[in-house]
Amino acid sequence: MNALSTTPVPKPMPKATDFLIASKKCELANLERFLQMGKLVLSIGNLIHTLQRERGASNVYLGSAGQRFSEELIQLTQETRDRQQVFEDDLEALYETLIASPASSRLLNSLAAALHGLDTLNPIRLRVRGQQIPATEAIDAYIERVGHLIAVVFEAAETVVDPTIAGILVAMVNLIQGKEMAGQERATGSLGFSRGQFDDALSQRITHLIDAQDRYFDVFTRFADADSVALWKHSSRAPYWEEIRHLRGLACSIGRYKPLDPALADQWFRLMTERIDHLKSVEDSLEEHFHRCCIERYTAARNALAHEETLAAGLDESGHAPEPVLLVCNDTSASGATRNYDNQGIGPRFGRSVFDLVQQQAQRLEQLNEELHAAREALEDRRTLEKAVLMLMKHQQISNDEAHKLLRKLAMDQGRKLTDVARSLLTMTDLLSAR
Amino acid sequence: MNALSTTPVPKPMPKATDFLIASKKCELANLERFLQMGKLVLSIGNLIHTLQRERGASNVYLGSAGQRFSEELIQLTQETRDRQQVFEDDLEALYETLIASPASSRLLNSLAAALHGLDTLNPIRLRVRGQQIPATEAIDAYIERVGHLIAVVFEAAETVVDPTIAGILVAMVNLIQGKEMAGQERATGSLGFSRGQFDDALSQRITHLIDAQDRYFDVFTRFADADSVALWKHSSRAPYWEEIRHLRGLACSIGRYKPLDPALADQWFRLMTERIDHLKSVEDSLEEHFHRCCIERYTAARNALAHEETLAAGLDESGHAPEPVLLVCNDTSASGATRNYDNQGIGPRFGRSVFDLVQQQAQRLEQLNEELHAAREALEDRRTLEKAVLMLMKHQQISNDEAHKLLRKLAMDQGRKLTDVARSLLTMTDLLSAR
Repeated sequence: MNALSTTPVPKPMPKATDFLIASKKCELANLERFLQMGKLVLSIGNLIHTLQRERGASNVYLGSAGQRFSEELIQLTQETRDRQQVFEDDLEALYETLIASPASSRLLNSLAAALHGLDTLNPIRLRVRGQQIPATEAIDAYIERVGHLIAVVFEAAETVVDPTIAGILVAMVNLIQGKEMAGQERATGSLGFSRGQFDDALSQRITHLIDAQDRYFDVFTRFADADSVALWKHSSRAPYWEEIRHLRGLACSIGRYKPLDPALADQWFRLMTERIDHLKSVEDSLEEHFHRCCIERYTAARNALAHEETLAAGLDESGHAPEPVLLVCNDTSASGATRNYDNQGIGPRFGRSVFDLVQQQAQRLEQLNEELHAAREALEDRRTLEKAVLMLMKHQQISNDEAHKLLRKLAMDQGRKLTDVARSLLTMTDLLSAR
Repeated sequence: MNALSTTPVPKPMPKATDFLIASKKCELANLERFLQMGKLVLSIGNLIHTLQRERGASNVYLGSAGQRFSEELIQLTQETRDRQQVFEDDLEALYETLIASPASSRLLNSLAAALHGLDTLNPIRLRVRGQQIPATEAIDAYIERVGHLIAVVFEAAETVVDPTIAGILVAMVNLIQGKEMAGQERATGSLGFSRGQFDDALSQRITHLIDAQDRYFDVFTRFADADSVALWKHSSRAPYWEEIRHLRGLACSIGRYKPLDPALADQWFRLMTERIDHLKSVEDSLEEHFHRCCIERYTAARNALAHEETLAAGLDESGHAPEPVLLVCNDTSASGATRNYDNQGIGPRFGRSVFDLVQQQAQRLEQLNEELHAAREALEDRRTLEKAVLMLMKHQQISNDEAHKLLRKLAMDQGRKLTDVARSLLTMTDLLSAR
């Protein structure tokens, strides 16, 4: 019966420490990926910025029946194409990383949609130039393309596992979205002022866009760094605000039925452009902070990995070599074998250290997971809101703006948060449709 | 000013279709990974099964002061070591895949913990053999190791992106957990019966373990396939149940203070082993279903990819070649260039098809995401429950069993679901500690 007693322990390969180190390396690879992604986010931000200007100018051009901004449009189109080239170059440089690493299917799909949108922009430009497209249709075409680009940043944010970086990307998505609402406000206002009149639909749209901006900037200020928030607060006290508020008043209330001086279009475009450029500088500050954080987190993770590898190598030397360890399966050999494990011998000492490392890592990962949860929730909120709006549009046969307005009214009436109302609505719809 | 009008479109490389296909490939790679992971889940299930038997036998051995199961223990220990070898071989075969692909840091860390637990089992075995360890401490040592192995399946389930497969893994985790509760019941009962008496702590533990089994099997039946559920239902009407219920009665109520016939330990172990083996056959059925599903989903995804690649190649041939497309930036050349896009020409036709593909893919991914959400929620529930139990143990200075009992009482009193109560408790604690 003693046959079993000296059976060698099964060869422990790969060892616990290998997986511990692999776990750290996996974190490191993710951080490295976001160091590269940062560049892409930057070029997307820049591309969106010129697309927004091109959209605004297109609307002045169309609203003025081709009288205004003909030259500006040429310049801005060229600028967009330059930025598009940078974006595509960055994308090409990242291509292998994106398709090889833990990029989600959704991120890749959003890139496909974004690229496709850019590929199909020229026919729209031609129709704008030939004044063969209704202004609202042109706005919508640009909105769709900008939306696809924003979706890339959104999906990228969803693939982050580091909570600090996830938080900054959540701030980024919301800043870009808020800025996009400001951009749409510029385009919508440009159309109304250059036409010399705002109808109900245009006024309502402006009101909705103003509300939406507040909402996005609110989330931005929760997740952004102090410097970027300070810059944003500074922009919200800029001197152009007085004039913007005056023009908003003309667009939404007092003046909306009486003819306006078409020259106001230039003033509006200039003011809003100044404001949006201001927002772009906030975006650049946030981008810089993002880059700095990626480098910091990456360096820290690399140092931690090196430290862990040293520790693990030390542990290996101190006795976890594949020497056979006595295994005892009956009474007779127990006393002999027990020696190996008495007095906190090699086995337990090794064990204790690895155990500590594994526990530390597990606790840290759990902690990270909780922090990440908060950032993810902010993204989830956006998704919920959009789904509720789509649902309302479909069920109530109303426009996007009206659906947003209805949601806001419900939230106000019930004294609840917008996302809570959206969530309840979706749950109720699920229940009703399940019957 | 005509210089701009024939500027070539920026080289569209990589193209939208490349990302569309990369998105599909990313899904495919994930499915492939789970085809391989299935083998690991199987060997983990088998290893847990023998560890559970070894634990039960250890407790009969310790409870009977070395009088019973001395031989069985030798056999079972050898069996565990064989299964451990298979697990480590499978792990070695998977090693490269695991560390290279989108394995989460947490999955790798859980593997480190599991391996470490197995590496440090021998000292425990020696102390059991020499009767130098309190029985409850021995049970706990095995529980900890089984727990680490279950955590691997749990973390693996969290990395799935395919909702069907995620659902099966959620069923698997809960089945294994329920079976582990049954295993702990066997070990706890073995101790009491072989001692010939149950004290308060042992009885309470049995009661808690019975409740916990119900909870886990409940989730299992929600997510498992019909065949496995049928097999499980069949096992819950097996003839041994009458005897098990009788012995449970002796352990928890009627007989717990009066001395019991120590021979009941053998009967209890035999019955519970029959039951747990039955559960293992349910696990094998679920495992088989998992494997089948992985193959099906993988084959389907591969066919879809091939189909998409054919479509994309066709689209390329039909005119998205890198020939320069006229770009018009001022009025003079507009009429000439517009020809390219009139009559739903090549550009738009290409666009439409890619657009359809991208939209389809996006809708499908969104749909998958929603289904996945349900599976993830079941995992999240488990995490919430465990966190609430830990919190209660710490704050109230009570045992794991008592914390579970307190939670159940709260849920019963408030007529709410266990996880809802757990969630509220955690939120409240967060709020209180934030002050």
